[in-house]
Amino acid sequence: MTGSRFVCEIDGSHSHGVFRVPGCRASLRSGAIDAGAEPVLDRVAPALLRVDACGGYAQPALARAVPTIRDMVAETGTATVALRDSHHFSALWPDLEPFTDAGLVALTVVSGGPTVTVRGASRNVFGTNPIAFGFPLAGARPVILDLATSTMSNGDLRIASNEGRKVPVGTSLGRDGRDTDDPAEILAHGGALPFGGHKGMALSLMVEVLASALTGGAFSHEMDFAAHPDNQTPKTGQFLLVVDPARGGNAGFAERAAGVDRLPSDRRYRHRDAAAERGIPVTDGIRALFA
Amino acid sequence: MTGSRFVCEIDGSHSHGVFRVPGCRASLRSGAIDAGAEPVLDRVAPALLRVDACGGYAQPALARAVPTIRDMVAETGTATVALRDSHHFSALWPDLEPFTDAGLVALTVVSGGPTVTVRGASRNVFGTNPIAFGFPLAGARPVILDLATSTMSNGDLRIASNEGRKVPVGTSLGRDGRDTDDPAEILAHGGALPFGGHKGMALSLMVEVLASALTGGAFSHEMDFAAHPDNQTPKTGQFLLVVDPARGGNAGFAERAAGVDRLPSDRRYRHRDAAAERGIPVTDGIRALFA
Repeated sequence: MTGSRFVCEIDGSHSHGVFRVPGCRASLRSGAIDAGAEPVLDRVAPALLRVDACGGYAQPALARAVPTIRDMVAETGTATVALRDSHHFSALWPDLEPFTDAGLVALTVVSGGPTVTVRGASRNVFGTNPIAFGFPLAGARPVILDLATSTMSNGDLRIASNEGRKVPVGTSLGRDGRDTDDPAEILAHGGALPFGGHKGMALSLMVEVLASALTGGAFSHEMDFAAHPDNQTPKTGQFLLVVDPARGGNAGFAERAAGVDRLPSDRRYRHRDAAAERGIPVTDGIRALFA
Repeated sequence: MTGSRFVCEIDGSHSHGVFRVPGCRASLRSGAIDAGAEPVLDRVAPALLRVDACGGYAQPALARAVPTIRDMVAETGTATVALRDSHHFSALWPDLEPFTDAGLVALTVVSGGPTVTVRGASRNVFGTNPIAFGFPLAGARPVILDLATSTMSNGDLRIASNEGRKVPVGTSLGRDGRDTDDPAEILAHGGALPFGGHKGMALSLMVEVLASALTGGAFSHEMDFAAHPDNQTPKTGQFLLVVDPARGGNAGFAERAAGVDRLPSDRRYRHRDAAAERGIPVTDGIRALFA
């Protein structure tokens, strides 16, 4: 969900759509999130923007920063954005569309609440720490890939648990560090593992450094929900890089990128087109969350 | 190997050390690489530098760019570098050390020759497309993580094949797309798979777009070694981002990053210290490559 557009649900990402509304509502009611926060922009150097979300959601802070970011890209060729003290409870691709729609290349990473464990750890140490990357494509809508650096998003793990479904062995560990396919057992003992073994763990660390250490936001493992038990969204940070691919003699970028024949956004665009025609289907399971 | 320092061998990365020298020699003799290339720097915007390696190795081109990159970071807070028509035959962490040693955060990705396959493909489509990320740490040497987005580097696959060792099932596919633990069979039918399934594949695509499409360098799948069969290094491109973490009120970055308790560089530094004392051990297997 992003603002009032429900773009994640429309794009077929049910784990980040209507399913999240009760969590957003509970988080706002908990007092952990400042819904009226006024984000503060500070362009500390020509190509480096610091944004303090002041404890609000990341999306309105980024929306306020978009004109400045576009100015920065026009002036310096790139913009690096360090957003801190922000809550993020959504997928990342909507954050990149204002840039990919304008023909720019964009990369963003967000650190999350402590929902991801690593082998041998006694507690969760990372967030699902997603990475999103988007780029324009000649003759087609922009491509945006968006992936948690965990085997599974926390939302999907919770949906599987709610619906009594199994998850693939390797998703994470259960009792005594043993393999299990039971999402409830995984959630009772920690969370998902990083995807792809030690390499995914290294990328999750990269996300923590970019989105928390560099921005001055909190690390995943520093998040403490004790003061606001109903809050579901961590106050961490986000890193964003925007680059103008047309600067300096590579005006054919979008045509060249079209040489890549794998399009991770195809499924989302199919859902978006279908939702424009038929609206958003809401299952009984989702309806029950609002009861 | 980087220049005359053999830093990869010294740091314990045998797949990128002395083992690579015969390949470098054969590649240079093939005429595919211009050892005397004069790299051209073009600062197309205050924070965006294009570098044309003019068919030479990436390392001397980057070495020439370092003072300009440092100037850019001082002026704009960040530097984005798009290097094209460059050959890279080494690990990536040595490329980042001029920046991490100066207290900066740096990210680089390189597209490679077509050595990585994906399920269902009839030929290799990606390079091993590595990602490296480095950052300074208070009271310790900088941390640099450096990982191929493939299950295994092509160098390690070739070493395993040369030494008659098996590789883990899942590394890649053999005859008729079946699982195999035989590196020779994998190399005969393609190369490694991306690590971590579709997520690793998405990141490998990201590397292609940043290092090839954005820079104007060749894509992995465009590389053709037919004209120079003895050449082992592809002419592709490289993307580099350098950010000053101390700009704008986050001077405590290196102290905060030290809160992260996983250090992917520890093993390399142990090897580096040992090599400084005892030199570089060369095995009989490596010696045979020079016979």
